[in-house]
Amino acid sequence: MRNLLLLLIALIFSSEVISQKGHVEDSLIIKNIFDAALLDGKSYDWLDYLSNEIGGRLSGSLEAELAVKYTEAELNKLGLDKVWLQPVMVPKWTRGVAEYAYIQTAPGISSTTNICALGGSVATPDGGLKAQVVEVSGIEDLEKIGRAGIEGKIVFYNRPMQANLINTFQSYGGCVDQRYAGAMEAAKYGAVGVVVRSMNLRQDDLPHTGSMTYGDTPVNLRIPACAISTNGADYLSSALKLKPDLAFYFKQNCRTYEDVQSYNVIGEITGSTFPNQYMIVGGHLDSWDLGDGSHDDGAGCVQSMEVLRLFKKLNYKPKHSIRVVLFMNEENGLRGGTKYAEEAKLKGEKHVFALESDAGGFTPRGFTVDADSANFMQIKSWTSLFEPYLIHYFEKGGGGADIGPLKEDGIVLAGLRPDTQRYFDHHHAASDTFDAVNKRELELGGAAMASLIYLMDTYGTKTEATPIKN
Amino acid sequence: MRNLLLLLIALIFSSEVISQKGHVEDSLIIKNIFDAALLDGKSYDWLDYLSNEIGGRLSGSLEAELAVKYTEAELNKLGLDKVWLQPVMVPKWTRGVAEYAYIQTAPGISSTTNICALGGSVATPDGGLKAQVVEVSGIEDLEKIGRAGIEGKIVFYNRPMQANLINTFQSYGGCVDQRYAGAMEAAKYGAVGVVVRSMNLRQDDLPHTGSMTYGDTPVNLRIPACAISTNGADYLSSALKLKPDLAFYFKQNCRTYEDVQSYNVIGEITGSTFPNQYMIVGGHLDSWDLGDGSHDDGAGCVQSMEVLRLFKKLNYKPKHSIRVVLFMNEENGLRGGTKYAEEAKLKGEKHVFALESDAGGFTPRGFTVDADSANFMQIKSWTSLFEPYLIHYFEKGGGGADIGPLKEDGIVLAGLRPDTQRYFDHHHAASDTFDAVNKRELELGGAAMASLIYLMDTYGTKTEATPIKN
Repeated sequence: MRNLLLLLIALIFSSEVISQKGHVEDSLIIKNIFDAALLDGKSYDWLDYLSNEIGGRLSGSLEAELAVKYTEAELNKLGLDKVWLQPVMVPKWTRGVAEYAYIQTAPGISSTTNICALGGSVATPDGGLKAQVVEVSGIEDLEKIGRAGIEGKIVFYNRPMQANLINTFQSYGGCVDQRYAGAMEAAKYGAVGVVVRSMNLRQDDLPHTGSMTYGDTPVNLRIPACAISTNGADYLSSALKLKPDLAFYFKQNCRTYEDVQSYNVIGEITGSTFPNQYMIVGGHLDSWDLGDGSHDDGAGCVQSMEVLRLFKKLNYKPKHSIRVVLFMNEENGLRGGTKYAEEAKLKGEKHVFALESDAGGFTPRGFTVDADSANFMQIKSWTSLFEPYLIHYFEKGGGGADIGPLKEDGIVLAGLRPDTQRYFDHHHAASDTFDAVNKRELELGGAAMASLIYLMDTYGTKTEATPIKN
Repeated sequence: MRNLLLLLIALIFSSEVISQKGHVEDSLIIKNIFDAALLDGKSYDWLDYLSNEIGGRLSGSLEAELAVKYTEAELNKLGLDKVWLQPVMVPKWTRGVAEYAYIQTAPGISSTTNICALGGSVATPDGGLKAQVVEVSGIEDLEKIGRAGIEGKIVFYNRPMQANLINTFQSYGGCVDQRYAGAMEAAKYGAVGVVVRSMNLRQDDLPHTGSMTYGDTPVNLRIPACAISTNGADYLSSALKLKPDLAFYFKQNCRTYEDVQSYNVIGEITGSTFPNQYMIVGGHLDSWDLGDGSHDDGAGCVQSMEVLRLFKKLNYKPKHSIRVVLFMNEENGLRGGTKYAEEAKLKGEKHVFALESDAGGFTPRGFTVDADSANFMQIKSWTSLFEPYLIHYFEKGGGGADIGPLKEDGIVLAGLRPDTQRYFDHHHAASDTFDAVNKRELELGGAAMASLIYLMDTYGTKTEATPIKN
């Protein structure tokens, strides 16, 4: 409370604080933004099309290309100053025929279980892979068990997401190394495959895919990796207690092709005062293939498109150039985000602010901000403008994967932070579908983003020459 | 901001402020409460049973009686000091065979539309009711149109919920008079029936029921009332623009019986220091019949049960007597809440605090408090204890319908305020089902309630003799 008091006093006596008049004007403009989003929003219709007419948009897929064309066409309808495609080469990995797996506890006694290949995994041999299983609760267990206990076996990573963390992304962060590096690490001990408990806080039958790496593992030593549903993981773990020598069989048919051409989709309203200073808002257009990618990250794309649509609709003429960027290939390569940053640097485009939405289309709770103190304090000082919309959380934290490559001194990165409780019920699974998105929650997120961009455009970012006095 | 500063200064220099040591202890206890709720909660299992094994629990129904028996039995397993049933007579209204309706735009050209009888409505005649329709946007239109335009017709109330209000309960409050009093008012102008646009912010095909009143309308002048889905309402409105003389047909088979015996279900942990001062936590056990009443208000019941279970599990021995009260008949009579308050008064039981959860099992955002300034300020001063759980909203407002009858000087009433964006997608409709409840969101609500009861029990309510100095 003392710190809060000092902060308030600092703000009240700071010359940088928004004047009372400015505050009232900002409140009215933000009210107009929220009204327009809730009464006449477009994001939900766009998402309906992306999800239900196109579907899952894995990089290099036909669906990803359709999504590029569709969003380019929709941006072209908005009367922006420029809309263009930015070419980027992306990896192409396909799942192939659906995976199949069973747990065999005795000859002739087996039960099937739901799995899916992890993104980037190699296939099993044509006849599938069958081996005994060693259960671990993380990569750190491999060394304790040693090669003798692992060689020739399937390693089953079963550390669950921690349920008593309030921010479920923290729970995810505490487990996802099993998925990302589990196969690479297990291969070092002679494992023949890995099965990873799905990154899901719910007990259900859905496997959740996601990216993995083989690092510099030679091609001939790469082992197949799959995710198993949370119910399946619990069953397998129980069965192992009764029958430590049970066999796990799985077959997956995934394949990596040569990189293919794809695109970031970009639209711009050119700034009236600082046309060469860029503020961008974006999400990623690619998704995993099991669901239709509505939350991850169709929501972020249509919310970002909505920001520019709202500005045009409300006849707001920004001082800075505002771009919507729909990044390709966040999920399994980050090529789009990397490419965008490279080109910005090559062209000497000065980016001052980047905002990403990539945490689901749920009720917005606030923003995380990756910036220096002066810029963070400025954004924090806007809290009261967001409180009427029950948006209250302004903390330091990362902006988002796609905008990460833009990071350099002076730029402000921010991420929309929606409510996280339901996110991992859907993330990378067949349940990431349009019906799991609530129209109002999606629209509130877009309005929150538009409001933050409006404020950043109006007040600008702080540079070292003009720090907040605090 | 100035007001907030003054408030903070007042709090910091107030003798009533929790000491730093107390704050740390409270933080730890609240952390234990949330951990226990999220790692080893019971509420979701209880709700599964109430919703999937019993189902919708309309007052006077078999399901309502099964719910009384089930929750009594479950409370008996918790090792409380007392568990009992409090008899209360409740209305019994049944829907009967499913309703049927169509819109006839020309002889032989008609389309069916989804309706449901409003709770408490009379049936149509056996052969159904067919009449022309007059659309209005509220009760206030009736006088403008007058008897000549209404007599012999069906009045169609079509004012939608206002989408740009952030708190959807406000949108509901702005429309629900059409449902509650629409039939009574239309009958005064000679209408033969009413059709009410469902109280739903989503466009879908589900009609939403809810309570209505005929006031003192004589029995022979009571007209049947139904709800139509939002899609149906839009279709009917469009059709009326093309064909103002179209006919609407509906048949409903509902019936009101004599009152029947039912019960409030009550459990108590008797206080160690103030056994004769009561703090209660509750929800309502009855629900509408179209869904299974998971959000409204199975969630509130199991969260309230969880509060006492958590106290027992954590071996917390309250100073005041803490009761869980599962009220019967909130939806169409409020008999349970009324009865509980009457008996408390008769027995001279001093109630100092009552907390209700009846706004859905969604992510908790905070509490509304109905109390004098001293008590409100005390609760508001606890905000920082809830912030780690992203619970930030502490405002003056109503507690809940069931605890309302307890209101008198000195008592503090409070209501859990979950996120409201999805609530009216489910409220009183066939979509109020278990699968729409997220386990974590439900558990976070129960933990928030337990934490508030813990703090109230620890610090007590403020009386006029010990005001906060501010």
